[in-house]
Amino acid sequence: MAVILITGGARSGKSKRAETRTRAFPGQPVYVATAEALDAEMDARIAKHRARRGTDWIEREVPLDLVSALVATDGGGARLVDCLTLWLSNLMHAERDWDREVTELAAALPHLASPVVFVTNEVGLGIVPDNALARSFRDAAGIMNQTIAATADEVEFVVAGLPMKLK
Amino acid sequence: MAVILITGGARSGKSKRAETRTRAFPGQPVYVATAEALDAEMDARIAKHRARRGTDWIEREVPLDLVSALVATDGGGARLVDCLTLWLSNLMHAERDWDREVTELAAALPHLASPVVFVTNEVGLGIVPDNALARSFRDAAGIMNQTIAATADEVEFVVAGLPMKLK
Amino acid sequence: MAVILITGGARSGKSKRAETRTRAFPGQPVYVATAEALDAEMDARIAKHRARRGTDWIEREVPLDLVSALVATDGGGARLVDCLTLWLSNLMHAERDWDREVTELAAALPHLASPVVFVTNEVGLGIVPDNALARSFRDAAGIMNQTIAATADEVEFVVAGLPMKLK
Repeated sequence: MAVILITGGARSGKSKRAETRTRAFPGQPVYVATAEALDAEMDARIAKHRARRGTDWIEREVPLDLVSALVATDGGGARLVDCLTLWLSNLMHAERDWDREVTELAAALPHLASPVVFVTNEVGLGIVPDNALARSFRDAAGIMNQTIAATADEVEFVVAGLPMKLK
Repeated sequence: MAVILITGGARSGKSKRAETRTRAFPGQPVYVATAEALDAEMDARIAKHRARRGTDWIEREVPLDLVSALVATDGGGARLVDCLTLWLSNLMHAERDWDREVTELAAALPHLASPVVFVTNEVGLGIVPDNALARSFRDAAGIMNQTIAATADEVEFVVAGLPMKLK
Repeated sequence: MAVILITGGARSGKSKRAETRTRAFPGQPVYVATAEALDAEMDARIAKHRARRGTDWIEREVPLDLVSALVATDGGGARLVDCLTLWLSNLMHAERDWDREVTELAAALPHLASPVVFVTNEVGLGIVPDNALARSFRDAAGIMNQTIAATADEVEFVVAGLPMKLK
């Protein structure tokens, strides 16, 4: 078992780095997309990611039930979960108890046999947002990132496509 | 004398890291809160921080006069100042000369006997804010962080709860 | 030939660091400003930067045609380009094909004889901006930073005035 967390800003090269780390494990890689193609902007981004990573991935769309998906795909190749911040946003929109779900995810990780590579975003390094919802989200994202980082075997922070090893 | 600066984004684990560093010094630790409990959101955050760090701290509320507070509490255990960005915000709201006060703080640090651990925020890594006040604040925060970092013995940048050594 | 990319947040000490790196090369340094003095806020910032770096620099204002300017000033001292994110913003306002221009810049770098030190900004580490234009800009800035970082010989990330070596 190996759990790797790749964090960074928007368009920092996180996904590409995570793909490289995922492909380095043996077996057919599994792409766990937390995005749903709900608008044209998101459609275009999903298509671009797919074009880059190639067609040899097993693909799963998992907006909410991440732990079940990781259990269901366990035993094969490494899973790339892209990305945790979108999963968190989905949980909040669905009015699920994100705090409990993050804790359950962290608790489930040590019991998995196949590797998991998570992509997440750093969203707390700008000016305090004006609206309370955005503040809640960045607080939640920070807590989630700390929680998963504490459990992960490796954590990398990507800036301008270049990884810094945090753990 | 030891001066340590812990910087990072919102909910990055800065305060927890700073508590660990402060407790590692001998003597009863002193918590210097720059926050004032002015609304429910702030109340809740203060209560949460207090619950985590325990009740064995001497507590001081110091929204503005930080240098005096550090001189007054000198000679005992290490001081944890949480946080400099809120102090800066308080100075600006009170229409004090923040630039001069930051310079005076940096100048006072080498004359203190007991350690000081500062928490601060990185706020300049997002998109340029629309309003001029927010731009002024992030400029001021960046200048303050550079000034204190230049004087500090150690500087750490915390991401997802994990410190990177900058100095 | 040496290409150095200095990245970081607003008021992180990037420009100062880049000046130090540029001055370390032999010859008269060339300051390539991508800023145009269009308003009082920008005027003040330009004047402050100029006061700090001294008067022994050759100065060029290059809001758009960066590759030509680097070719035209080649063969002398090192060039400091401050900064790439403003250049990108200028290209977008002028409705030029920024993607192609960034690719051309990266392709031109290995053919230059004199060193180039670039300053750029990390703008993708805050909350997702509300407006589509800001989102496009931060995506473009991230892609540009990755592209130039991939070509650069050295990349540094500056936080609180302190550089971390990324490459």
